[in-house]
Amino acid sequence: MFPTLTWYVACTADEINEKPLGRTICNQAIVFYRPQPGQVAAVEDFCPHRGAPLSLGTVCEGKLVCGYHGLEMGCDGKTVAMPGQRVGGFPAIRSFPVVERYGFIWVWPGDKTKADPALIPHMVWYDNPEWAYGGGLYHVKANYKLMVDNLMDLTHETYVHSTSIGQKEIDETPCKTTVNGDEVVTSRFMENIIAPPFWKAALRAKGLADDVPVDRWQICRFTPPSHIMIEVGVAHAGHGGYDAPAEHKVYSVVTDFITPETDTSMHYFWGMARQFNPGDKALTAQIREGQGKIFAEDMEMLERQQKNISAFPDRKLLMLNIDTGGVQSRKVIDRVIAAEQAVVA
Amino acid sequence: MFPTLTWYVACTADEINEKPLGRTICNQAIVFYRPQPGQVAAVEDFCPHRGAPLSLGTVCEGKLVCGYHGLEMGCDGKTVAMPGQRVGGFPAIRSFPVVERYGFIWVWPGDKTKADPALIPHMVWYDNPEWAYGGGLYHVKANYKLMVDNLMDLTHETYVHSTSIGQKEIDETPCKTTVNGDEVVTSRFMENIIAPPFWKAALRAKGLADDVPVDRWQICRFTPPSHIMIEVGVAHAGHGGYDAPAEHKVYSVVTDFITPETDTSMHYFWGMARQFNPGDKALTAQIREGQGKIFAEDMEMLERQQKNISAFPDRKLLMLNIDTGGVQSRKVIDRVIAAEQAVVA
Amino acid sequence: MFPTLTWYVACTADEINEKPLGRTICNQAIVFYRPQPGQVAAVEDFCPHRGAPLSLGTVCEGKLVCGYHGLEMGCDGKTVAMPGQRVGGFPAIRSFPVVERYGFIWVWPGDKTKADPALIPHMVWYDNPEWAYGGGLYHVKANYKLMVDNLMDLTHETYVHSTSIGQKEIDETPCKTTVNGDEVVTSRFMENIIAPPFWKAALRAKGLADDVPVDRWQICRFTPPSHIMIEVGVAHAGHGGYDAPAEHKVYSVVTDFITPETDTSMHYFWGMARQFNPGDKALTAQIREGQGKIFAEDMEMLERQQKNISAFPDRKLLMLNIDTGGVQSRKVIDRVIAAEQAVVA
Repeated sequence: MFPTLTWYVACTADEINEKPLGRTICNQAIVFYRPQPGQVAAVEDFCPHRGAPLSLGTVCEGKLVCGYHGLEMGCDGKTVAMPGQRVGGFPAIRSFPVVERYGFIWVWPGDKTKADPALIPHMVWYDNPEWAYGGGLYHVKANYKLMVDNLMDLTHETYVHSTSIGQKEIDETPCKTTVNGDEVVTSRFMENIIAPPFWKAALRAKGLADDVPVDRWQICRFTPPSHIMIEVGVAHAGHGGYDAPAEHKVYSVVTDFITPETDTSMHYFWGMARQFNPGDKALTAQIREGQGKIFAEDMEMLERQQKNISAFPDRKLLMLNIDTGGVQSRKVIDRVIAAEQAVVA
Repeated sequence: MFPTLTWYVACTADEINEKPLGRTICNQAIVFYRPQPGQVAAVEDFCPHRGAPLSLGTVCEGKLVCGYHGLEMGCDGKTVAMPGQRVGGFPAIRSFPVVERYGFIWVWPGDKTKADPALIPHMVWYDNPEWAYGGGLYHVKANYKLMVDNLMDLTHETYVHSTSIGQKEIDETPCKTTVNGDEVVTSRFMENIIAPPFWKAALRAKGLADDVPVDRWQICRFTPPSHIMIEVGVAHAGHGGYDAPAEHKVYSVVTDFITPETDTSMHYFWGMARQFNPGDKALTAQIREGQGKIFAEDMEMLERQQKNISAFPDRKLLMLNIDTGGVQSRKVIDRVIAAEQAVVA
Repeated sequence: MFPTLTWYVACTADEINEKPLGRTICNQAIVFYRPQPGQVAAVEDFCPHRGAPLSLGTVCEGKLVCGYHGLEMGCDGKTVAMPGQRVGGFPAIRSFPVVERYGFIWVWPGDKTKADPALIPHMVWYDNPEWAYGGGLYHVKANYKLMVDNLMDLTHETYVHSTSIGQKEIDETPCKTTVNGDEVVTSRFMENIIAPPFWKAALRAKGLADDVPVDRWQICRFTPPSHIMIEVGVAHAGHGGYDAPAEHKVYSVVTDFITPETDTSMHYFWGMARQFNPGDKALTAQIREGQGKIFAEDMEMLERQQKNISAFPDRKLLMLNIDTGGVQSRKVIDRVIAAEQAVVA
């Protein structure tokens, strides 16, 4: 079960150009394509003629042409033409609302009459000279909620990412979770600590000393269906921490768009938007590579965790106070799904 | 469900020599072997002693010797001997009628009392100096009827094989399907067109001009269970097309023997028998390689189509006029199966 | 179904050092680790917090630390500590009796109150200068009883291992099976034969002529749950065979510890302990390599046999007199399982 009256990231903008892209989202096989440069469309990845995947086809004059027998599909899921055929009686396939924004293609997998592009979350860093952004995509064979748990409880950094961003103080510092409507916020503030390797490098990149005590923060914000933005950074101690003036701190936002593929797999769009040295493209590439390695560590853990959970489906897991962020986020997800079903019923 | 009172191609003659060959046909695990040079036999690939596959064994003095404990199996499925054992009470396993003909081993998977070698289709080109033949075998993870559909509707060439044998005129020229008893024939005649790359090369190979208009034909002949012979060729325009004298045309027959393995997989024996330049072995090899590439394009499409159909088992597919050849062939298959079951009941 | 109130070989001693080892035994996912050098412990491979596999964690000060959020697990399956948490109410996971002995880690998968290390079979050759030992581990995708059958009926050597230890006389010489309580013994004595290649090499290694007639013996001893020790050797004919003085014979014991993983897979710990040239390490390595190749031949046969049996679950297999060793061993296994269940009921 997934929320469906909502926007998910389906792919990055550069994943579709001349060729269509087939991708399963919320258990639905969908083909994404550009009817014209700069436009985007999405329909079921199933030709109504003989069931061939339309994603094996081509785009021609605004239509998606099936690669098997040339059926021409329109963006609305209705067949436009087929060589030598009258297509008026052809059954329509589903089409899906899609929007290109912030470098992503967003898809609305549920009732399309309810799709409102204004509901796509705003990203201040996109196309903004004060920010730099780099990111990537991982396919993870685990239920998407395991990633929500992971990102709403950063104590795992101490263990899973011990050589980069982990440090004992994360474990030792209590976090605090608040729920504001559908938003869940888990925050942790560590004062007067030594920065871990990733943040030392960030300080150096900005020309700040890396061997003095810092204040470090992690503010994880979950919003439905499964987007998590995490404000992270360090400031030289004694300057106000999270609220320190820009010249004393390095600050960025870890961006996580988690898109369910099936009940036991997900597309994980990860990235980092930062406010320090935004013009330094080499730094962007270097951070992206480092973050990719860090998130690959999570992947192995989550896939093995999923296998264990699938093998023991009846076993109850613990909900500790460090898990509060994940627990509250799951409650929001459940509430959203229940509300969708109440409307349907 | 498959017709079983019929001959299927099990393997090519050179796939079995000293070593037996295990192959599943119509959901039955069968071992094929040569009791003596020039002979062929087939029994269940299951040793009655402990269930070992007999295809891991060896052939010795006419018997198939199990590679585990030396049980000696006869061609009739009865155990002949076993070291230190009286084998009179051993249960028999099934044996299957097999015939070596035209370079293939043919198997009859159903009631063996009904097997009649005279029912094996005749192949005029075999061992005939006026013809040359080359072919191959693909294992395709799709139901065999999807291949029947594919071969009885060649409009797909325009899309799937656009760089070799496809051309827009295939799509634009209606085809005609006739049913004569159990034979289904779909034919298409294109006049005064430019030959596509494959046929230009064929014209050149025969020393004919490749840049003048040609007439092209495709005559697909389905016979049960799932053999499809396709007459194909081009003639310089104005000489009578399909009926043109040999010096004005290049002519061949695409040979397709489709053998079900399971409900979602098949052994596909493809080939081409041609009447031009039959002595040119290099040309035979070159055509075989080209045809192998073309049929690999079909394979990807069919395997993905099968996945889509398996994921949406209840979805009804369209039956257009271009599909008539496949639809009629499926009707013949269904009729054959129903007739077999009526006999059994 | 497996006997569980018994000791199985879980792994070799050198498979666990700093890092824990996850391994499924009798359908139970277990993590093996060394709380301290020289010690060994085993608990379920499932963190009670969020289901992560503990085998991805580390060992620290005697505790198994989960690699996800740092839960510290004790050897008794009770959580010792977790950063920032009171763990008193945490559910315990199962722990398993384990013993390191004879170079192996032994595990008792059933009711731990019944575990008695005295029940571990004695191995005279371990750490004994009169003996040399070499062995290995194969993961085999077949039910463990198929391996019991294989090892309690060595007629298969004639066919499966025809180039090393097989010879026609094995087949021709009847074997004799006796049952003594839970022990099953199948023995075969061949007199005045020519040694097969493996034993010729052994004779030469000991400086004995390899081209004279020998007496050969094979005495397979099964004990529950699925340990099989096979006395094998040859003596120059006329010196008493199995009872010949040491200077006229080469003698060794094939050691087989068969540990069920799932219903259709096993961990197979194979080895050979020999009494000739015990100090010759090169010979040990050479024998180990040869034996590894021989047992790989069995692996292919058993995996294919398992596939066939899984495909035909209702087919009854034959029980011949050569199968008596396996049949009797299976009866012992069934009796042991029934006795365990009677206690539980």
